[in-house]
Amino acid sequence: MAELVNSGHTIHFETELQPLKTFLEDAKYSKIFVFADINTSAHCLPVFQAMLDDFSTFDVIETDPGEENKNIDFCIGIWKTLLDFEADRKALMINLGGGVITDMGGFVASTYKRGIDFINIPTTLLAQVDASVGGKTGIDIDNIKNMIGTFSLPQAVFIESAFLKTVPERELLSGFAEMIKHGLIIDKDYYEALKTSDYKNISPELVYQSVAIKNKVVTEDPLEKGLRKILNFGHTIGHAVESNSLSKDKKPLTHGEAIAIGMICEGWLSHKNSNLTRAELEDLTAFIKVTYPQYTIKSKDFKGIQELLKSDKKNEHGQILFSLLESIGQCEYNCKVSDQDVIESLNYYNSVYDI
Amino acid sequence: MAELVNSGHTIHFETELQPLKTFLEDAKYSKIFVFADINTSAHCLPVFQAMLDDFSTFDVIETDPGEENKNIDFCIGIWKTLLDFEADRKALMINLGGGVITDMGGFVASTYKRGIDFINIPTTLLAQVDASVGGKTGIDIDNIKNMIGTFSLPQAVFIESAFLKTVPERELLSGFAEMIKHGLIIDKDYYEALKTSDYKNISPELVYQSVAIKNKVVTEDPLEKGLRKILNFGHTIGHAVESNSLSKDKKPLTHGEAIAIGMICEGWLSHKNSNLTRAELEDLTAFIKVTYPQYTIKSKDFKGIQELLKSDKKNEHGQILFSLLESIGQCEYNCKVSDQDVIESLNYYNSVYDI
Repeated sequence: MAELVNSGHTIHFETELQPLKTFLEDAKYSKIFVFADINTSAHCLPVFQAMLDDFSTFDVIETDPGEENKNIDFCIGIWKTLLDFEADRKALMINLGGGVITDMGGFVASTYKRGIDFINIPTTLLAQVDASVGGKTGIDIDNIKNMIGTFSLPQAVFIESAFLKTVPERELLSGFAEMIKHGLIIDKDYYEALKTSDYKNISPELVYQSVAIKNKVVTEDPLEKGLRKILNFGHTIGHAVESNSLSKDKKPLTHGEAIAIGMICEGWLSHKNSNLTRAELEDLTAFIKVTYPQYTIKSKDFKGIQELLKSDKKNEHGQILFSLLESIGQCEYNCKVSDQDVIESLNYYNSVYDI
Repeated sequence: MAELVNSGHTIHFETELQPLKTFLEDAKYSKIFVFADINTSAHCLPVFQAMLDDFSTFDVIETDPGEENKNIDFCIGIWKTLLDFEADRKALMINLGGGVITDMGGFVASTYKRGIDFINIPTTLLAQVDASVGGKTGIDIDNIKNMIGTFSLPQAVFIESAFLKTVPERELLSGFAEMIKHGLIIDKDYYEALKTSDYKNISPELVYQSVAIKNKVVTEDPLEKGLRKILNFGHTIGHAVESNSLSKDKKPLTHGEAIAIGMICEGWLSHKNSNLTRAELEDLTAFIKVTYPQYTIKSKDFKGIQELLKSDKKNEHGQILFSLLESIGQCEYNCKVSDQDVIESLNYYNSVYDI
């Protein structure tokens, strides 16, 4: 269908993996590993193999699904598996799965023997629109997200809507949050288009546009020195709420659900501390409210969430820095916010579903 | 005294850390960490502080000394310490110590929050002539050396002979092996100069020349696609013998002692499979024999050593690849060697001290 080129690699859309077939034939890797979780191994691997004409000359490395397993213990296991399989520097790792698989697989590949090639095939909506661009790899430490990682580019990325058919509704909703974010920070028209779309049947065109937005930002600022920070809108509070939920809730929030909460809170902060109008705040609040289920941030967790904010990777010199909306479709970064405003933004979120 | 510039950073020689003082004043890091082992913390840290006029605005992260501690468990400990200290992306890590400290400190820094700045101050002869150039970071897994790591450049490197005064003789001898290697692979005159030098009182000029040789090779091939592999002369068998010794010997070989053994073995392989003459082989054998203590590679360990060779990072497509001398001062790479020749080279080493 289309492709996006950024510095170093190409993102292929809806090609039924045909360019991958050619690539594997030409590249002469010594060994090929497919890294998947038990879900993608069961549901996506057959699709992958069929697209590649029953391609089978690879070994599967399987892991447990879920953010709680994106940790160093699993990395050690994968490194040792690669060693057991005598993987050398000419080995290739194909990461087939959601963001946990592409983040962790990318980290393992980028550090095994100081780096082997890897390819990402994101199979969830979240991974397609978010983890597919930008060369960020990472794992969590003590439930703090992506605290350890590298900037390492895959050889290529393949985005196929066929894989989305295997994704549960709640996971589609999770990815949808990043799409909303892309509209909010840079493209009002795209945001409006999403309001009339159905996240359960998202069109390949909307996915493509979302990736194109992220790709544009990342290409301008690959190492997150400046502009790229706008992609963190909703993520400062969102990540903290997500970490808090991961460690406390029986059924934790998905990433996108947490980001949706973060966007409402940081929308409020944008109205308070930047130029987002009250009408715009209400518009985004209403859209997120009808799309995402209610959640309550317990007031007894506020302190813990503030502690988690101190570990945010965007912080500099002990100061928590936010990316805030100047309007719908425009975002600024390195914004300071008072502790009191953070608390009030959490209270604002909690009040939204009461109305 | 002098400096060497390579792509991205400068190696400063005998400056009493004055450029570091200026750098720290200008760079405005949010926090500074000095990473050291308990030995360098006791013996090198006071020298470091005195050179910087009692500089004290840093936190020390201390680890246990020795290759056996260059592992992921210690990395996790350091990552968590950085988190506890609320280190952000504008933090700096100064690695003060031998190769274990610069390798592991570099790996931790290059992966913490996807990379913070670091500076290397190698305090052993080995680290000064070997680990100071090239941007290799790494840790061991299952006693297999540097199996996990990144290519990441420090902001700067400082080499000071003052620190060598704190280094035990056996450790000086360890570093001397890499200097011999630099002569053997690229500079016959330098090799001859080393033969008349005293490793216990090595001159700053000989250290400089060694670093300059390595810098030249690494600058031409930073990612070890080709030429840089010549730096692995002596290291293919050397690393395997070292890993074997680490896991079996009560008092394991130092890195340099293992490389000295590796250079005799691979010298023999160079005579057998490349153009090194018998006289040249005998010359290098004699030099190493008078310089390094006798060691016996047990024949019951030969199989294990061959297994370890299979994990060598230079291997491609299951083939063990050696860097071999064409003559003293000239080296080729990607050389195939039979399993039988590997065994015979180990036997040759064992026979050397019998003569």
